[in-house]
Amino acid sequence: MYTAKINRSEDTEKHLEFIQANGFAILVSNVEGKPWATHVPLLLSRDKKKLQGHIAKGNKQWKEWNADTEVLAIFQGPHTYISSSWYDHENVSTWNYVAIHVYGKLKVQSESELLNSLRELTDKYEKQSERPVSVDRMNQQYVKREMLGIVGFEIEISKIEASYKLSQNRDAKNHEIIVTELEKRGDHGSTAIAAEMRKAGHS
Amino acid sequence: MYTAKINRSEDTEKHLEFIQANGFAILVSNVEGKPWATHVPLLLSRDKKKLQGHIAKGNKQWKEWNADTEVLAIFQGPHTYISSSWYDHENVSTWNYVAIHVYGKLKVQSESELLNSLRELTDKYEKQSERPVSVDRMNQQYVKREMLGIVGFEIEISKIEASYKLSQNRDAKNHEIIVTELEKRGDHGSTAIAAEMRKAGHS
Repeated sequence: MYTAKINRSEDTEKHLEFIQANGFAILVSNVEGKPWATHVPLLLSRDKKKLQGHIAKGNKQWKEWNADTEVLAIFQGPHTYISSSWYDHENVSTWNYVAIHVYGKLKVQSESELLNSLRELTDKYEKQSERPVSVDRMNQQYVKREMLGIVGFEIEISKIEASYKLSQNRDAKNHEIIVTELEKRGDHGSTAIAAEMRKAGHS
Repeated sequence: MYTAKINRSEDTEKHLEFIQANGFAILVSNVEGKPWATHVPLLLSRDKKKLQGHIAKGNKQWKEWNADTEVLAIFQGPHTYISSSWYDHENVSTWNYVAIHVYGKLKVQSESELLNSLRELTDKYEKQSERPVSVDRMNQQYVKREMLGIVGFEIEISKIEASYKLSQNRDAKNHEIIVTELEKRGDHGSTAIAAEMRKAGHS
């Protein structure tokens, strides 16, 4: 992904935390020569070297996967419009956002690998449930039947690109004005970007 | 995009409204044989047949664009995890989301087309500002200089695919339970998906 130098981040630990906290990703690869995207939760493996997920067998994206397929997984954080009307000088408006792009080669999982991934994925998101379900406590015939309808995969992470576009190029005064205006707006994207801006700082 | 029949929507007017309301998109095309994505606001043209946008000249994505380039623009709505622990029967958990994918051929804009798009894009988002900025009221030398750093483009819309994955396959009782649990959670994604679920209805 293109990222201006001031918006780049090379902090791999931070990126992996972001991926774990924003796990609903967009998986992109080519189908019939055109980009094809699937919205799907991706799970970071325990060794933090792979992403694991599954798609419906009816989704033809998997039919073109082979040992050389390099896919892109997009993890998106908050985003919001930044109005240059807030600044103390003339400038163009822009958009602030946080996004992480992961590239890697993809491999289709075996049945047991898929089962393990489903267990871990379910456990991860069921932590917040009052009465958590678990794959192991389900009827195993039912689980097997469900697995027939999906294709599991692993992406061996080869590159992580991060864009923290957070007005880092503004001076202290204008940076503070932006944060204040975003907090006034109060919607989800504005509030979250204001918090990210405070963390990222200014020029 | 793969979409189960029950989650599909063919209502073009609704999709165009969604695109206008969720204009911060992801533009995907290939660079050096791999998928490349840029996070960018896309503006629906007045005749509703095109998407207009611009990217930084430093972003090499535009260097591979030619008259045959078919790109994918991803517009994402809310999304949230749906726990099967809420259901009155055994089932797997899932993710609900709304997403629209637009395909089309891309053409680089002339200088005057780009200027028009910048005017309209700014006017669209400045409507909410107390003291709206406008491209026409800016120093025109400054605008020209800024334009040297970007590449404007138009996507001629050839296909719109919409996925409203909103538990439409659940019966009235389970559908209501899901909506109630999402409203209890109270975060942005859950609240927005609960509202979309009420609109979409159940089996």
